[in-house]
Amino acid sequence: MQNKKRNVIVGQSGGPTAAINSSLAGVYKTAIDRGYKKVYGMIHGIQGFIEGRYIDLAEHIESSLDIELLKRTPAAYLGSCRYKLPEIHEDKALYEKIFEMLDKLQIDCFIYIGGNDSMDTIKKLSDYAIITGSKIRFVGCPKTIDNDLALTDHTPGFGSAAKFIATSVKEVIRDGWSLETKNGQVVIIEVMGRNAGWLTGATVLAKGEDCDGPDAIYLPEVTFDVEKFVKHTKDLLKKKASVVIAISEGIKGKDGRYISELSDVTDYVDAFGHKQLTGAAVYLAKVVAERLECKTRAVELSTLQRAASHMASLVDITEAYEVGGAAMKAADEGDSGKMIVIVRLSDDPYQAGTEVKDVHRIANDERRVPREWISKDGTYVTDEFVTYVEPLIQGEVGPIMVDGLPRHLYRPGLHDLF
Amino acid sequence: MQNKKRNVIVGQSGGPTAAINSSLAGVYKTAIDRGYKKVYGMIHGIQGFIEGRYIDLAEHIESSLDIELLKRTPAAYLGSCRYKLPEIHEDKALYEKIFEMLDKLQIDCFIYIGGNDSMDTIKKLSDYAIITGSKIRFVGCPKTIDNDLALTDHTPGFGSAAKFIATSVKEVIRDGWSLETKNGQVVIIEVMGRNAGWLTGATVLAKGEDCDGPDAIYLPEVTFDVEKFVKHTKDLLKKKASVVIAISEGIKGKDGRYISELSDVTDYVDAFGHKQLTGAAVYLAKVVAERLECKTRAVELSTLQRAASHMASLVDITEAYEVGGAAMKAADEGDSGKMIVIVRLSDDPYQAGTEVKDVHRIANDERRVPREWISKDGTYVTDEFVTYVEPLIQGEVGPIMVDGLPRHLYRPGLHDLF
Repeated sequence: MQNKKRNVIVGQSGGPTAAINSSLAGVYKTAIDRGYKKVYGMIHGIQGFIEGRYIDLAEHIESSLDIELLKRTPAAYLGSCRYKLPEIHEDKALYEKIFEMLDKLQIDCFIYIGGNDSMDTIKKLSDYAIITGSKIRFVGCPKTIDNDLALTDHTPGFGSAAKFIATSVKEVIRDGWSLETKNGQVVIIEVMGRNAGWLTGATVLAKGEDCDGPDAIYLPEVTFDVEKFVKHTKDLLKKKASVVIAISEGIKGKDGRYISELSDVTDYVDAFGHKQLTGAAVYLAKVVAERLECKTRAVELSTLQRAASHMASLVDITEAYEVGGAAMKAADEGDSGKMIVIVRLSDDPYQAGTEVKDVHRIANDERRVPREWISKDGTYVTDEFVTYVEPLIQGEVGPIMVDGLPRHLYRPGLHDLF
Repeated sequence: MQNKKRNVIVGQSGGPTAAINSSLAGVYKTAIDRGYKKVYGMIHGIQGFIEGRYIDLAEHIESSLDIELLKRTPAAYLGSCRYKLPEIHEDKALYEKIFEMLDKLQIDCFIYIGGNDSMDTIKKLSDYAIITGSKIRFVGCPKTIDNDLALTDHTPGFGSAAKFIATSVKEVIRDGWSLETKNGQVVIIEVMGRNAGWLTGATVLAKGEDCDGPDAIYLPEVTFDVEKFVKHTKDLLKKKASVVIAISEGIKGKDGRYISELSDVTDYVDAFGHKQLTGAAVYLAKVVAERLECKTRAVELSTLQRAASHMASLVDITEAYEVGGAAMKAADEGDSGKMIVIVRLSDDPYQAGTEVKDVHRIANDERRVPREWISKDGTYVTDEFVTYVEPLIQGEVGPIMVDGLPRHLYRPGLHDLF
């Protein structure tokens, strides 16, 4: 038996994606459909909420059209954070404060959309609820373009990033054939993925009846050897005038150092002592130009790959929406300390559904590309990889175009609290 | 009176664009419709043709669907070149050879799609035809993403690049609001354009009801001052937590040196002694990070901006097609030594048509953004600029999606001659 329904609060956490707002839309729609009065949105996740920053989503989502716009709006609508709650015994006062705030807002359900850190937040808050007898339910909703979350077949956000990346790589490959160059040309495309090569591997999808695909693919799961790379590239150049190679930003040498650290470019983003991984492609392009005396170019897909909602995957945006709805449904039906996962029922035809899992089982482990899905010499991915990833980029969510550009959901004043 | 129609040859030259193949499709379709027997395509432009490389386009374009695919295929389908013919008096033998080859292929019309150098080719070949009494007609068809060609209101290829750039900038701006950072965050987006700032200026289009647009825009038409830039950026950061700035790759300091030359990154592409312009954003991001102690990120739109046919402008692709058709029509009707230009009849509603101009009037001058279309302090563009550029990104040419990715026109073996 359910008490009279009161309010819901939802937050977004971790790196933004093209699909994270579709999950937000799914949470909102399901909450309203199930009779909740208000849906609050935390500004900048739990971190902003602790500081008292939140909005009433009804002031932002005023119509069914707004739901559709929100699904097509890149990045975190509510703002995101990278914040890990302390252990309960470390700062009980903080937990008391959070629950006081939630009670004051008459919250029944707390939904958090994010990656590993976000599931940790759900775990700790739901544990605290059990300890204190609070009736608030806490449910997590997965997202990450990196696809490195355990338990779930894949994560919302990955498919759309993969679709944009494969599209761009295909276009860059085609571009590579335009101009003839002495000794050939090598383009090195750098793709996001610090430890997991899912996105870099997805460049294989550019291969098809109308495109050779990338000529080599280097994932962070395999130790990178600059000498072998140069030799392999030299062999490729013997066979074709235009070579395109995809590398992960996270490739590392034998000594465990990131290849990007060998480059001069890495420093610039670093105002706080964190090295940002960028520059591996620039470094390798330089090496190839010097060693093979050919024209080279480094292409970093950069922020575009996680923000390109204009080339979102229908499968991904739909699943993100469903996962949001499933999280809300689970919380509504009394689940807490749970996260929603995607379960694949079939590769071809692709079918998938959602399940509810205990968030305590997540345990912060990163899911990486299995070694057997990478070719023996570490320069490509296998057919098994293709079978896995191909269904996730299918279908399009046409952007709603206004004045020649994709329209996003935005209300004046949204960023005032940011 | 026209002789019995024989054959046509068409070539592509200069940097690739997302629209150059739409012009090729226009030439092909109009040539067939007007009763020409064969349409040959030069591989890598006049340079490849001199080496005997060309194809019969009928073996590539087999249906109306292929025409549609060709319109949506990025980069130069035939391959391109950067080759300037010598003056006639410098190498008469070369001209004799070219005309012998053209006669052997029974060519009546020679269409060349490209920028300034291509129009120079048309000029020289048509001059030689007059001198020698050849009846072959030579007509040029403009293209360049840089929009720096004189005489024409704008160039095919520009609108599609502008549309992709504005879309990406809008998405990056949105992404910038996701994560909160101490002292704020500055993203610097580097856009193509060595001497002309048309594409960088087009980032202004991201501004609208749902987006602030870039916070500052720096074109190569205005001398760049690093100190003023830092000061202006500091002021922007006082007003908002997430600042996005668009810069042209071609911005130069007072001393006439490219800002990119101040960066370490520039060297890597250079195997032949040509400095490639890239690295200005990386350099400035580093400066801002150091001086303003904030998080910064450099985003280079790189090859993507000229190859992104998946976000092509309908106006642009349609005009590119029409310009190709108009070039073929002009040649068919006896014009030679001419180029097609686009004439704007009205801004709102946007209306434009084509005209035939004497190619001798082109004279290699680059058309740059007028100073009065740039704000006084050189950090933005004016409403006049917006009025000019906005119509050119309107409408979409939906890619034909197969297996989740845009399909391009490709025949096995196409690249054998490349």
